[in-house]
Amino acid sequence: MIENGWFYERSYKGQFSMGWKVKKHLHSEQSKFQKIDVLDTHAVGRLLLLDGKTMVSNLDEFVYHEVMAHIPYMVSRTCKKVLIIGGGDGGVVREFSKHTSIERIDLVEIDERVIEVSKEYFPECTSALDDPRVKILATDGFAFIKSKKDEYDIIVVDSTDPEDFASGLFTESFYTDVYNALTDDGIMMNQTENPFLDEWGVKNIYSNMRKAFPFVQSFTAPMSIYPGGFWTFGFSSKRHLGTHINPKKILEMSTLERDLKWYNTDWHKGAFAISNFHKKKIGQY
Amino acid sequence: MIENGWFYERSYKGQFSMGWKVKKHLHSEQSKFQKIDVLDTHAVGRLLLLDGKTMVSNLDEFVYHEVMAHIPYMVSRTCKKVLIIGGGDGGVVREFSKHTSIERIDLVEIDERVIEVSKEYFPECTSALDDPRVKILATDGFAFIKSKKDEYDIIVVDSTDPEDFASGLFTESFYTDVYNALTDDGIMMNQTENPFLDEWGVKNIYSNMRKAFPFVQSFTAPMSIYPGGFWTFGFSSKRHLGTHINPKKILEMSTLERDLKWYNTDWHKGAFAISNFHKKKIGQY
Repeated sequence: MIENGWFYERSYKGQFSMGWKVKKHLHSEQSKFQKIDVLDTHAVGRLLLLDGKTMVSNLDEFVYHEVMAHIPYMVSRTCKKVLIIGGGDGGVVREFSKHTSIERIDLVEIDERVIEVSKEYFPECTSALDDPRVKILATDGFAFIKSKKDEYDIIVVDSTDPEDFASGLFTESFYTDVYNALTDDGIMMNQTENPFLDEWGVKNIYSNMRKAFPFVQSFTAPMSIYPGGFWTFGFSSKRHLGTHINPKKILEMSTLERDLKWYNTDWHKGAFAISNFHKKKIGQY
Repeated sequence: MIENGWFYERSYKGQFSMGWKVKKHLHSEQSKFQKIDVLDTHAVGRLLLLDGKTMVSNLDEFVYHEVMAHIPYMVSRTCKKVLIIGGGDGGVVREFSKHTSIERIDLVEIDERVIEVSKEYFPECTSALDDPRVKILATDGFAFIKSKKDEYDIIVVDSTDPEDFASGLFTESFYTDVYNALTDDGIMMNQTENPFLDEWGVKNIYSNMRKAFPFVQSFTAPMSIYPGGFWTFGFSSKRHLGTHINPKKILEMSTLERDLKWYNTDWHKGAFAISNFHKKKIGQY
């Protein structure tokens, strides 16, 4: 809600609020799927909202996007084909596109309007969407994933919170479909919410992931614009642990790292060394 | 400010806000130094405010307190005498008191009322203040530290933001006094703010620390109730790196760790593997 020149996002059953002073309300529309807003704020620059929830900001978009792409890329053995479900802002595509060995990046975003609005207001995020390796599919991720077998090396589930049409992206059935769509070395990445303000049942999300994947780990990266700022991410794979960086990729990354804003391989390994609290919340004792 | 049943803390030049729905305003007073409030909130339980800024909550007090005590303890060689400047809530004292080899814990808190209010409303934090090894000194930390030479193995600066009477706790002159009050193996710990909402000049704080100490490192731990949630901490020492855990202490910690809510030695080492963004913000390229 926007009131008196401020945008407030209430979360955690309406008991917690974060607010940003608004310079200008740049865009507002109701798409077929959701309300899309873009604000210009003093503290975090431009801020993309879907149904009144913060998604992407100029201040810290690089954290989420770098983490979701470079962690699985650096662990993968061969990585030729990548799928991103959701993520219409294009930020995860941009990061994968930095790796020249990737031949194909499929972006399945149900809401085309998110892509169009992002192109207009977040051009630094969408900059790789016209890369010839990128294919944009404006379709339902659930149906799409069921049609794929043994095809992708990495699948990123870049979703909103588990409610409304995104709730199915946190189920055992969906994770099993993702497993089947992955190659034998495949890796799934997903955002798994804030366990301090545990509105969505983090333990249950991880339990569902474990039913589909033999290796499930969690790591953390900060998201200043998300409720509480402490964010967890899931790394699920068929063969490899998230800390097992592929030595063949170290040289490539040592050059690329200089231009990355967040990711480096030391941070990558450290992010998987999680606290007792984090372990308990994901059911890993 | 409390309005319509909510407490809001505005930060970052009044451009960002965090808010908690209030069950009950349990306590309010103006001490000689500051306004002290205790709220009971839905999302984070009891919440201690000093001059309208969040300090401690039931939800996540263990993060700050465990980190500030166990990281330097595990790196230290001998650790007999510890000083905490500020920290009247008693949480850091409680964590140090778990190590039986520590002989003396001095708590220098300028405002006795913070201690008394914490005893009443945060008994789980103050539980070790009556430990015979603990000495509480209600005095000015600046004068106190100047009077000490080569005395403490660890000094924790548990301060508020660098403004008003706490601003001096972020200066080269103060850090030099801390250095002189430490033994040859000494370690200083301090909170160094959120570099995403960089209101206080994180780079300058680290620059001041480096003028006083040969080894200065930074690590991160989440503070859900602080602005933006991403928090950095400083580890400054005369001889040891923050990742160099003393092998003689591993056995003690392996037992203690089971009862800690946040800290474990893997997390300890990982927390020092910081992101490119973090390095840049503290002036470490």
